[in-house]
Amino acid sequence: MQGTMLYGPQDVRFEERPNPMILEPSDAVLRIAAACVCGSDLWPYRGIESITQPTPMGHEYVGIVEEVGSGVKHIKPGQFVIGSFWASDNTCPICQAGYQSRCVHSEYIGAGGAQAEYLRVPLADGTLVATPDPPPDELIPSLLAASDVLGTGWFGAAAAAVGPGKTVAVVGDGAVGLCAVLAAKQMGTERIIAMSRHQDRQKLALEFGATDIVTERGDEGAAKIKELTDGLGAHSVIEAVGSQESMMQAIRSTRAGGHVGFVGVFHGMQLPGDELFFAAVHLHGGPAPVRRFLPELINLIWSRKINPGKVFDLTLPLEQVAVGYRAMDERRAIKVLLHP
Amino acid sequence: MQGTMLYGPQDVRFEERPNPMILEPSDAVLRIAAACVCGSDLWPYRGIESITQPTPMGHEYVGIVEEVGSGVKHIKPGQFVIGSFWASDNTCPICQAGYQSRCVHSEYIGAGGAQAEYLRVPLADGTLVATPDPPPDELIPSLLAASDVLGTGWFGAAAAAVGPGKTVAVVGDGAVGLCAVLAAKQMGTERIIAMSRHQDRQKLALEFGATDIVTERGDEGAAKIKELTDGLGAHSVIEAVGSQESMMQAIRSTRAGGHVGFVGVFHGMQLPGDELFFAAVHLHGGPAPVRRFLPELINLIWSRKINPGKVFDLTLPLEQVAVGYRAMDERRAIKVLLHP
Repeated sequence: MQGTMLYGPQDVRFEERPNPMILEPSDAVLRIAAACVCGSDLWPYRGIESITQPTPMGHEYVGIVEEVGSGVKHIKPGQFVIGSFWASDNTCPICQAGYQSRCVHSEYIGAGGAQAEYLRVPLADGTLVATPDPPPDELIPSLLAASDVLGTGWFGAAAAAVGPGKTVAVVGDGAVGLCAVLAAKQMGTERIIAMSRHQDRQKLALEFGATDIVTERGDEGAAKIKELTDGLGAHSVIEAVGSQESMMQAIRSTRAGGHVGFVGVFHGMQLPGDELFFAAVHLHGGPAPVRRFLPELINLIWSRKINPGKVFDLTLPLEQVAVGYRAMDERRAIKVLLHP
Repeated sequence: MQGTMLYGPQDVRFEERPNPMILEPSDAVLRIAAACVCGSDLWPYRGIESITQPTPMGHEYVGIVEEVGSGVKHIKPGQFVIGSFWASDNTCPICQAGYQSRCVHSEYIGAGGAQAEYLRVPLADGTLVATPDPPPDELIPSLLAASDVLGTGWFGAAAAAVGPGKTVAVVGDGAVGLCAVLAAKQMGTERIIAMSRHQDRQKLALEFGATDIVTERGDEGAAKIKELTDGLGAHSVIEAVGSQESMMQAIRSTRAGGHVGFVGVFHGMQLPGDELFFAAVHLHGGPAPVRRFLPELINLIWSRKINPGKVFDLTLPLEQVAVGYRAMDERRAIKVLLHP
């Protein structure tokens, strides 16, 4: 098959790779219907996160089950399925508590590389959720979004304890941040402040439910949030970037007793304990347990209640994946959908 | 009056000081019935936290209202009262949400020095809670504990989301850690692991409700907690020390999706973001909003349901306060009660 490999900074290649196979009885192999490029793929693409060898890329996917292992009971060949970027058994105590991304048997799906024609998915019964029927084409972008950015934004909103009566701020206007706006809206939040200085992203944030736009960043951004909230700070802040600056912006934008939900993958961050102590906020986040939310997200998409697929503003054939990386790196695209 | 001043490391003096007076209409002045030495007082005493001038000491107190300002409506002269170490109006949105320690008008009570004969308490109506009647002498240690260590342990337990069906670990066997054990028990937790290597403190932990004792510390301590919890970690961990080592021990002892409640005042800590991200725990804590819990704590003490006063294992007259600091510094006493 053909698949995407990263050889080094800015060096993305779509090339011949071995066909994935069933290795464990609990595996499935999918024929990819759509995949995409993630903001987190840009860290190694930019050389900020180093790689030591050519690395398969991609961890977001929807597809059709091609084959299942002998131990797979519920997932069947021919089903259209969505999974998260972590394989999980969905039965261990950690999964049962809703933290499938930290399942005691978790495996990182991205290891195989989803920006490809086929993908091996371990723990298929625990990881994959099938749609009621094969989806119409127009739902595929939204279902693909559920695989990561929507599920991650959803977790950010849940971790930040958004809801009715709260003011929510979202730090980060990438696809995850925008989906967090949508999640906050769906969870009943009336006031949602999107922090963005890009007009196209502001527009989508407003469409997804944002009520205010703040263009300031860092401490100025936090000061602006305080100004908009009687000097107190937002009740809930979702951090969807992962840099030291954005995390401190999130903490400083939150009122005492409020909640910070962080879902941007942290890179080399050190949180100053003294400030954290006196901030008296709740902090929660990490790798999103997308699997927890998938059934609900698929329902909302299937019934056309949400349209998170709008985050894809560039669609390319898989073999043009390198063009997609470049467009996202240069912020010419919010998120790139790849189809075989 | 006579009061306690810290002049520098190990230099505690009980000396003549100006009588506190009503400065604002919302003030009260108390005649101290009992005060005590706090673990956090040891930071400047040991010179780890530097002071630039002779500093009044003490922020835990019970006493009798001597005088109130013209704006005080509910607190009356002659009442026996308990307050926390933060004065709070108890009416602002932050107080109403239960975070009185971060009240928009908060003032640190310790500024006046509670290890003294008299104490000025700002925002008296919001800060102080009166007992139903003047208490019998045997309740005074427990009521004094409510002023800080009990309330702080209680907040740590609440922040760690302890409760029925959970396994809780407590890092730190000082008075706050021991009170956190008691709080976890009162909140219905069946399994409470106290981390302590001091026999007298282990004994009190068991008396307060601990079911297991772990003597290992740091990563060995965390490994032991995992061993006791099917390799998963505790659901809830209360951090009651404030050092980098103890905080990392707390985070590493917690299962993914679990809760760390931190109440030990952080000193020069840097939390590694990458580890925190993948830990996927909830973090909450800070200066305890003791005021939130005072009415409930006073009820529990008044009805003899809890006896947190047992943390005081040395009682001294106020003028021997320096002896008390020394005993706590050398860990010969868990907590020292001072009476006028």
